[in-house]
Amino acid sequence: MNSLRLLASVRQNAILNLRSLSGVASAEPGSPNVGTAIPGPKSKALKEKMDPIHQTPSVKMFVDYEKSFGNYLVDADGNKLLDVYMQISSLPLGYNHPDLVKCASDPRLITSIVSRPALGSFPRHDFPDMIQKALISVAPKGLKSVQTMLCGTSANENALKTAFIHYQTKKRGGPPRPQDLESCMMQYPPGTPNLSVLSFNGAFHGRSLAMLSVTRSKPVHKVDIPALDWPIANYPRYMYPLEKHEAHNGKQDEQCLAEVRRLIETRKKEQRDVAALIVEPIQSEGGDHYASPSFFKGLQKICKEHGVVFIVDEVQTGGGASGSFWAHDHWNLESPPDMVTFSKKMITGGYYFKEELRVNEPYRIYNTWMGDPSKLVVLEKALEVIKRDGLVENTKKVGENLLAGLRKLEDLYPQQISNSRGVGTFCAFDLRDAKTRDQLIDACLSEGLHIGGCGDASIRFRPALVFTQKHLDVTLDLLAKACKKLF
Amino acid sequence: MNSLRLLASVRQNAILNLRSLSGVASAEPGSPNVGTAIPGPKSKALKEKMDPIHQTPSVKMFVDYEKSFGNYLVDADGNKLLDVYMQISSLPLGYNHPDLVKCASDPRLITSIVSRPALGSFPRHDFPDMIQKALISVAPKGLKSVQTMLCGTSANENALKTAFIHYQTKKRGGPPRPQDLESCMMQYPPGTPNLSVLSFNGAFHGRSLAMLSVTRSKPVHKVDIPALDWPIANYPRYMYPLEKHEAHNGKQDEQCLAEVRRLIETRKKEQRDVAALIVEPIQSEGGDHYASPSFFKGLQKICKEHGVVFIVDEVQTGGGASGSFWAHDHWNLESPPDMVTFSKKMITGGYYFKEELRVNEPYRIYNTWMGDPSKLVVLEKALEVIKRDGLVENTKKVGENLLAGLRKLEDLYPQQISNSRGVGTFCAFDLRDAKTRDQLIDACLSEGLHIGGCGDASIRFRPALVFTQKHLDVTLDLLAKACKKLF
Repeated sequence: MNSLRLLASVRQNAILNLRSLSGVASAEPGSPNVGTAIPGPKSKALKEKMDPIHQTPSVKMFVDYEKSFGNYLVDADGNKLLDVYMQISSLPLGYNHPDLVKCASDPRLITSIVSRPALGSFPRHDFPDMIQKALISVAPKGLKSVQTMLCGTSANENALKTAFIHYQTKKRGGPPRPQDLESCMMQYPPGTPNLSVLSFNGAFHGRSLAMLSVTRSKPVHKVDIPALDWPIANYPRYMYPLEKHEAHNGKQDEQCLAEVRRLIETRKKEQRDVAALIVEPIQSEGGDHYASPSFFKGLQKICKEHGVVFIVDEVQTGGGASGSFWAHDHWNLESPPDMVTFSKKMITGGYYFKEELRVNEPYRIYNTWMGDPSKLVVLEKALEVIKRDGLVENTKKVGENLLAGLRKLEDLYPQQISNSRGVGTFCAFDLRDAKTRDQLIDACLSEGLHIGGCGDASIRFRPALVFTQKHLDVTLDLLAKACKKLF
Repeated sequence: MNSLRLLASVRQNAILNLRSLSGVASAEPGSPNVGTAIPGPKSKALKEKMDPIHQTPSVKMFVDYEKSFGNYLVDADGNKLLDVYMQISSLPLGYNHPDLVKCASDPRLITSIVSRPALGSFPRHDFPDMIQKALISVAPKGLKSVQTMLCGTSANENALKTAFIHYQTKKRGGPPRPQDLESCMMQYPPGTPNLSVLSFNGAFHGRSLAMLSVTRSKPVHKVDIPALDWPIANYPRYMYPLEKHEAHNGKQDEQCLAEVRRLIETRKKEQRDVAALIVEPIQSEGGDHYASPSFFKGLQKICKEHGVVFIVDEVQTGGGASGSFWAHDHWNLESPPDMVTFSKKMITGGYYFKEELRVNEPYRIYNTWMGDPSKLVVLEKALEVIKRDGLVENTKKVGENLLAGLRKLEDLYPQQISNSRGVGTFCAFDLRDAKTRDQLIDACLSEGLHIGGCGDASIRFRPALVFTQKHLDVTLDLLAKACKKLF
């Protein structure tokens, strides 16, 4: 025992040496500090340097990721920004969380990075344990199986493929026949079926060609890219606060559900059956549009009636920010969605699926990497911290205060600000128009608050799960200052 | 200076402590050693354990990635296998290369993993340097710019999107107009154009819906998945050795080029223009089919004449195994391909592009992660090692001996083995039929040689760049033993 303890202590020292020498920040600034325009001169110079060798038009600023910590991003010019956008909602614990930095000395991380497996065929001997501890420990209620992928787009692509395979297998009553295998090589039916996927106006599901075909949030995503001819339904557009607009909002649900039913029935008649419906619990990129639990229950019911696979895309909403671990937890469904896709805060991409969606034949759902086990090492630790520190409960509590703060601001500027809405810290409000929204984002940045936009004229809050009341106080203070300057 | 040296030494000790304690192997077994059937009892038990929580039908064996080293894979049952398949051709330096393991203490790696950037908008302050040192230092001749992505599929998806944007921009003479932005949201022309991509029979370009539409290697990839209606040309099918079949092979080139030209012209008349042509230098998954430099020069010429973007997919061929860093180096083109895509041995996905392919508007080529800078840290080190140790030259030299060895085997079993072919260590041969091929793969495995199949009835060699004469001797010895047992 003693020698083991000694070993552990030597190892701990090695880690501490590494950490203290590695120049990674270990404390959060007390408050924002902006010394230059943003982007500052160093960011601008770096952009010029990068421009000849790598695309740069979307670059906002260069970031010093060693100096950033917790809720604070430090840019290349040394500006310290309170970050409530968090790399487009993708960092669960903010920057350089000390528990995550410790993963650097985990041999599973090192070997997974330098000896990366082709996971589908040659997984690590401890991969079943890693899946269990990381992904299954937070599986949506009622879903027991998962498949890892690399990102949200590949998760959604493979969820759709799984749905198509499921739909055709059910239709045939078994696996592909010789005539299916032959015809698919020429892309003729029956091997290449003319199936559709139903999605919604305002949706965002990724940037591959097929995912753009189910995406309808902004022209900049879609223009000039050929698309699959799949049907689109309207997503409810509510008025806020909800309790004051029950009649309008209820009617929205009703009309949208009727349209979904009609589209599925029409496509069936046209022999281009809808095999899957994909929907976000909150349309995020599209403008933080919400729909009610009864709308989603209605969708699930229609899908069940027509044998359509019901896919919930939790790429942006999953991972705790909504005050529940999954945003669809709020719906209290009687049975789970058929599939739930994830990425971003989950560190790895992937999807959960119902037993009947399992693909039994090898190499149908497959690619070289099928995910990245190094991300599971980090996710496992992140989930430990989330549970240990009660971070989902934290987003619920802090989120209520955030929404209350936004409503106060809305009362102060009723001509400029409307529709404050949110669950957990996943909050948003609308501005008068896109120009005003963009001006407000810039004004916040000058005050040291890094915030995101979405949809036509909305501001979205996407802080990390370590965003506490202290950070909220600074956020609301800076936002008020920016509004005062602007309005 | 002294205190700096002291710091460096303390740090080095910390690293050494970590390494020696972390249980990562640091030496290669002298020879293979097989003690169980493969998969062995431990692999089988792990598969049963994983089956309820994660898809398993493609799992061949579980691997102990801590114990694997160099060219040797150690499976969960302790079997030591000489690996000439290397995670489907994706590990440049084999398992746990000591220089790569050192990356674990690089703060850029740690922070990139725990504070992962949304690279398109908020890159690291040292990202331009990382791009320069890693990707630009090995850019294909004539190409100066690169865009990182996550994997081969996302590289190809974004290369196609870039080609579509380029084609439409040229056609319009400028960026999208209001009518393009409006119509694309309903997926009508002109905003959603009816453009095509030309690819080849036998091709493999990835597993997303659009990539499957340009893939024609095996039914198992495509069956039950809806597809885009894009044209397919034949890829030359040569007879080997090349010097004995010049007439046949030359005619193949001629016929295939004529078909490409015809398809492009027909689609143009039908107003569904071919915007891009995508082609592998060696059709790998499809069966290691080669085409001549003059075929590729012909393709490039046709593309130039018709304004078609010429995309070379080097996902499997790139990174040094062909005896050149890029397989298309062998063609001696007068001007570079318009785009070259990569992944696998390059550790990160991405694509190189010509200046005129640059997309100038923000958020058109975009997604949350846009790659993973932690992979660039590892790639930078891997390229250092490849240059330092002359590993590309090594694959050329060892590859010649490998091919010579295969030809001897072909002479020994002319009824069973044919068409030995290859450049560098990127070698293959054909068996009589798929069943014999699969039996030979299994027989090799029993001897301790892990080898891969491709196409209908081919064996492919995909060793790491650290595969030397010593490993080749063992490989040929085991292959001969397996053949002797089987034939």
